Amino acid sequence: MVRKGYKEEIDLVKILWDNNFAAIRAPASGGATKKPLPDVIAGNGNRYLAIEVKTTSKDKIYIDSEKVKGLHKFSRIFGAEPYIGVKFKYKKWFFLPLDDLEITPQKNYKIDLKLALRKGLDIYEVIGKEKQVKFK
Amino acid sequence: MVRKGYKEEIDLVKILWDNNFAAIRAPASGGATKKPLPDVIAGNGNRYLAIEVKTTSKDKIYIDSEKVKGLHKFSRIFGAEPYIGVKFKYKKWFFLPLDDLEITPQKNYKIDLKLALRKGLDIYEVIGKEKQVKFK
Repeated sequence: MVRKGYKEEIDLVKILWDNNFAAIRAPASGGATKKPLPDVIAGNGNRYLAIEVKTTSKDKIYIDSEKVKGLHKFSRIFGAEPYIGVKFKYKKWFFLPLDDLEITPQKNYKIDLKLALRKGLDIYEVIGKEKQVKFK
Repeated sequence: MVRKGYKEEIDLVKILWDNNFAAIRAPASGGATKKPLPDVIAGNGNRYLAIEVKTTSKDKIYIDSEKVKGLHKFSRIFGAEPYIGVKFKYKKWFFLPLDDLEITPQKNYKIDLKLALRKGLDIYEVIGKEKQVKFK
């Protein structure tokens, strides 16, 4: 039942609460719905975030295009800004808007540490910045 | 792990999706946070709902004041309208804004079928109506 990245999701939820966002993890098993659900949803009355969490001990991670489509769709219906939250081991969190993901030849998505360092927002940029990063 | 009202929560989440709300059940175990979480969260880009689900085969249900306080607090931080969603057996769903709950002598809350029929909104009223019912 415990999914990969569980501990990191818990840490992220805590960080969000500590910064005046109410945050919730999606249930481990879809359960109530076959709809694509993000790993974490958060809101502060003004901004709403839908976050897919990826963790790795390597220096890159891949994300299925279906996952990204699902996150985009959920966010559009719910009314949230979609992010991929990446936790490379021993690094801080990086958050990437979907526009900034790298596309692989197989039409999936990739984030390597270089991309994360260049394009990733840290948690305070995600929380603090204006509602301007939208998935087109 | 399966909490009371699980089937009803699943039904409610489905109804919300069918009406263009993205909806999600809270995880069965708090897990990520000790914070009070509603049973169901939903949004449609304009309205955000936080719902505590209560089901009963009797003709009244009681709700701990702590639960109601928690729902109020979560909703205030997240930016959602708080409702108690009540499912009496063989009846349709009723949704009560927190203001409309009956207070017991022990300072907890009660909803009986009579109150639900008088004050409860049906799902379409919750979904369709303007953002005017706010917990004060």
